[in-house]
Amino acid sequence: MKRWLVGSLALNAAFLATALYLVVGAQDLFVTYFVDPGWERRFSFFEAHPIQPGDVVFLGDSITASGEWAELFPDLPVRNRGIGGDTTEGLLRRLQQITRGRPGKLFLLIGTNDLGFGKEPASIAENVGTLLGEMHRASPETALYVQSVLPRAGEYREAIEDLNRRLEGIAAAHGATWLDLYPHFLAGDGSLDDVLTNDELHLLADGYERWRDLLRPHLQSPG
Amino acid sequence: MKRWLVGSLALNAAFLATALYLVVGAQDLFVTYFVDPGWERRFSFFEAHPIQPGDVVFLGDSITASGEWAELFPDLPVRNRGIGGDTTEGLLRRLQQITRGRPGKLFLLIGTNDLGFGKEPASIAENVGTLLGEMHRASPETALYVQSVLPRAGEYREAIEDLNRRLEGIAAAHGATWLDLYPHFLAGDGSLDDVLTNDELHLLADGYERWRDLLRPHLQSPG
Repeated sequence: MKRWLVGSLALNAAFLATALYLVVGAQDLFVTYFVDPGWERRFSFFEAHPIQPGDVVFLGDSITASGEWAELFPDLPVRNRGIGGDTTEGLLRRLQQITRGRPGKLFLLIGTNDLGFGKEPASIAENVGTLLGEMHRASPETALYVQSVLPRAGEYREAIEDLNRRLEGIAAAHGATWLDLYPHFLAGDGSLDDVLTNDELHLLADGYERWRDLLRPHLQSPG
Repeated sequence: MKRWLVGSLALNAAFLATALYLVVGAQDLFVTYFVDPGWERRFSFFEAHPIQPGDVVFLGDSITASGEWAELFPDLPVRNRGIGGDTTEGLLRRLQQITRGRPGKLFLLIGTNDLGFGKEPASIAENVGTLLGEMHRASPETALYVQSVLPRAGEYREAIEDLNRRLEGIAAAHGATWLDLYPHFLAGDGSLDDVLTNDELHLLADGYERWRDLLRPHLQSPG
């Protein structure tokens, strides 16, 4: 009997470890950048469809990826360069796909997944600074727009506001335009306005309409 | 000791049941159509961006959703109407979003998730017949294209080939054009060619290029 108990307890421990691995999220960085087939597939598509000069690029994570930008801005040469789950680290790995095409404008929205994985605002903002520096170096003619991280579930409020203050300073330091979307998506309790979302993170149609309206003046300008 | 063993075995059974629930997919239909916030978000976007006459609509599941169709066909008024995880049942629930816009062409690729959820080819094909009948009734001027279900992991070969034979007949019965993509994506072992995928289901860039080349003659024709 004792051998059975030891075996069963060991099996329980293995299940528990697997559950923790799957739930807690420490694996997410690994999965995303080393084995996530979804990230690799989007990466391969982007390699096959190079950015062109004059393109308007939307770069980011699932919030960007889920926007049908060609429908939101039907008259512009838009490129959706969002990947679900992406982070500042992921963007650094694929930034050359953007810069070597020398797009006309680049709209960056990144960082909420970094926060979800427990990264500190200071370190996330540092990565964004590296991104902006590299963009400006490789494609100085691209007009850069840094968008503030959107609200999500209320417990993220303090971290997001901290991150956004840092991002605003970094955008200014790199000559990028700061687009403060955040207050336009915020509910009174500090969360993402629930008429704009159904999971406290991603956007329903009304969220994309609001975002589009905020971007429109910057898309009509020459850059 | 015996009580501990019983407790431990029960805990193992609970873990195993949870793992099966999460892996095997019987919950997917429930999640997709009753609580999946991703399906609801895409649905809301599609409601806010109605199809227009003359549009070229790509309708289906994640394989369609993951294509940046505006980049694949930059000169056409394309609409991506794919939703990850969708099935024939899901399409029936959102078909009016398509038909009421009276698009110029509609390219349908659906059924692989139905198979994944254990549906029989006959019942899947019956749903596609309902879809085609409703499309033709509501928007008789739309040119309908039924695409064969793509290969995936080899164990699906028999079911997919059975389903495709049925779909071909149903397309003919409804005056839709049959586009037999299947053989162009097939490897010798009956699976999706592994140069086109990294998960035996979804497409890498080369898969989308192959698909685009097969569609191109039908997109250049008047309909």
